[in-house]
Amino acid sequence: MDRIYLYNLPGHLFLGLVLIRSKSRCSKKKTPKLVTIKESRRFMIDCFKALNVPDKHAVAQADLLVGADYRGHFSHGMNRLEMYINDLAINSTDGCAEPEILKETKATAWVDGHNGLGAVVGNFCMDLAIKKAKDVGVGWVCAKGSNHYGMACWYVLRAMEHGLVGMSMTNTSPLMAPTGAKEAALGTNPISLGAPAANCDSFLLDMATTAVAVGKIEIQRRKGAPLPDGWAQGPDGKVTNDAELAFNTACLMPLGGSELNAGYKGFGLGAMVDILTGVMSGAKYSTQVRKWTHTGADIKADLGNVFIAVDPNCFAPDFEERMSDFNCRLRGVQPTDPKKPVMIAGDKETKNMENVDKAGGLEYLENQLKTCEELAKRLKIKPMKFI
Amino acid sequence: MDRIYLYNLPGHLFLGLVLIRSKSRCSKKKTPKLVTIKESRRFMIDCFKALNVPDKHAVAQADLLVGADYRGHFSHGMNRLEMYINDLAINSTDGCAEPEILKETKATAWVDGHNGLGAVVGNFCMDLAIKKAKDVGVGWVCAKGSNHYGMACWYVLRAMEHGLVGMSMTNTSPLMAPTGAKEAALGTNPISLGAPAANCDSFLLDMATTAVAVGKIEIQRRKGAPLPDGWAQGPDGKVTNDAELAFNTACLMPLGGSELNAGYKGFGLGAMVDILTGVMSGAKYSTQVRKWTHTGADIKADLGNVFIAVDPNCFAPDFEERMSDFNCRLRGVQPTDPKKPVMIAGDKETKNMENVDKAGGLEYLENQLKTCEELAKRLKIKPMKFI
Repeated sequence: MDRIYLYNLPGHLFLGLVLIRSKSRCSKKKTPKLVTIKESRRFMIDCFKALNVPDKHAVAQADLLVGADYRGHFSHGMNRLEMYINDLAINSTDGCAEPEILKETKATAWVDGHNGLGAVVGNFCMDLAIKKAKDVGVGWVCAKGSNHYGMACWYVLRAMEHGLVGMSMTNTSPLMAPTGAKEAALGTNPISLGAPAANCDSFLLDMATTAVAVGKIEIQRRKGAPLPDGWAQGPDGKVTNDAELAFNTACLMPLGGSELNAGYKGFGLGAMVDILTGVMSGAKYSTQVRKWTHTGADIKADLGNVFIAVDPNCFAPDFEERMSDFNCRLRGVQPTDPKKPVMIAGDKETKNMENVDKAGGLEYLENQLKTCEELAKRLKIKPMKFI
Repeated sequence: MDRIYLYNLPGHLFLGLVLIRSKSRCSKKKTPKLVTIKESRRFMIDCFKALNVPDKHAVAQADLLVGADYRGHFSHGMNRLEMYINDLAINSTDGCAEPEILKETKATAWVDGHNGLGAVVGNFCMDLAIKKAKDVGVGWVCAKGSNHYGMACWYVLRAMEHGLVGMSMTNTSPLMAPTGAKEAALGTNPISLGAPAANCDSFLLDMATTAVAVGKIEIQRRKGAPLPDGWAQGPDGKVTNDAELAFNTACLMPLGGSELNAGYKGFGLGAMVDILTGVMSGAKYSTQVRKWTHTGADIKADLGNVFIAVDPNCFAPDFEERMSDFNCRLRGVQPTDPKKPVMIAGDKETKNMENVDKAGGLEYLENQLKTCEELAKRLKIKPMKFI
């Protein structure tokens, strides 16, 4: 059977997810082609630099993407490279742009990303939030004029490195139908929260506010399998089990699914994210946000993001020790299947990173490697090397 | 058919929900017994005062409860009175306690609720957050030593009155099973966010991070109807459709339901709430939190709460105008059923308040009125009067 890589990826990974390994059923297991993290990063930096992105911005964006691959979030890693490159090539993203603080207080800042690369805007904003949190306990930074900022937890990890609790959210292109609606009016609008714990442990949530990703629907479609209730709607606005219809309609249901299963809560959460990002920052929001495809988009994204850092030392002492106990309580609860201990947010990614370290490199899918080959030719850069 | 009041109530209303109207099938429609808001408030204030709660605290707690009834959240209104009274009677809540600031910065405060009434602790903390938000743009206040604080949106409304965006969360007694677990390890842990909009409009989310409330399971049990997938687990840790079994097991599933429907996201959100409330404040968290029943509890609750206020004027100007447009976009999206326009968070409550205003009073259920009669006798106070 084909190996499916996307099944457990976060739900806000919705584009370019035709990532099912194409392997002949009768072929023998091949030794995987591995790429070191260093080489993957080098390749992506070269791609960005070929589009005249300044070195430090190219590095920031490549670090984010290879970081996603390392964590097993392949859809948010190298898989997105081509889309970012296309956006840069048609000037709908400005690779040279520097974010600017428009207004600030001791605890807040309003930033214009000036249509820069997502990682550039995001790192700038979270660093500002961290500085403010160290000063007055909380930093709350809203950005307009941002682009797709990759996996939301990337910025949260930055805050956690300073012993802070981090949060990050972004709005995205419309894809979720409000409860009781036929049309999409919100994006997959992810929420990430991370908290450091003692002994190098942590809690790291990164989730879309839709039930599932379009990628999951794509996989069911390729398998010719029906969809479970609660994933997607047909054009009549009703739940559909037809994967083909769902894929063409592109109307995901909010977390929870139907009204009976409290899908209105997922809808509420998605709206909450848009309020704290798009509406509050003065960026595009709801149905104003552009569509985005693999070929890029001919208008600016003007997405809204929010970055929050909180210093737990402003509250009860020994936060990290309590976090460690909290994690242990959750992981230690009696599992339904004795062979499968309960996992908390971030555990799967830790496992993925251990696997990459053990293997010595990243195993990309064949169609991803093909895209990289084409990009190398197109941008006239050194192709990616394997171990 | 019996009228069922609880069906659309928020999911974190899980106790004392035996509220199905007991009406003879052959009886004619009776004129409802109505109680004015003023009289309901008077009655609750008198109850608290009979337990030696100081006037201002009695008023704070009664305002919260009657506010919930007015909004149609009956389970979080007068329905909770008896539990609060029982907790006060056995001294597991200290009705006289005043909250104390233990530590603060310009943007944060750590508060000890000293086991006071939930509304007293909550109002104190949100007022502090509002003050800080007006000063530096954000106020982030964590309380330990709190009690059940009623509907989460009550405190958010307080921030909204000042033109601020408000957020509030609390942990609660364990009732949600983590994905893949047989036992409950988190509460219904609600999240509330409110944002003011132009022309007296607003967005007001108040949702538990479980799929549904125990009250909904109770209703299915009384009807002898099966449960939909994704609501609750049996003692084997698997999804059950047996309402009786689910009620006795008391293991709710997180928002999303099973793993297939991304229930791990609801689990992650519930854990996020506990981190920001119980863990961060140094209160009880996860399985440390006591059980709570109608007869009260013999140990202190020591719940954790968080109250956040953000001044939208620190970011893009004209926030309320954009909020108004945002709400219109969501409400205006094409509905699945042309007769049912899309509703956003808070719309149902607005409708409920209009209905109470039109009727001239609150219509309590018969068993609620019976409880009030008994409370009046027990506490030797003036019974509640009807219009």
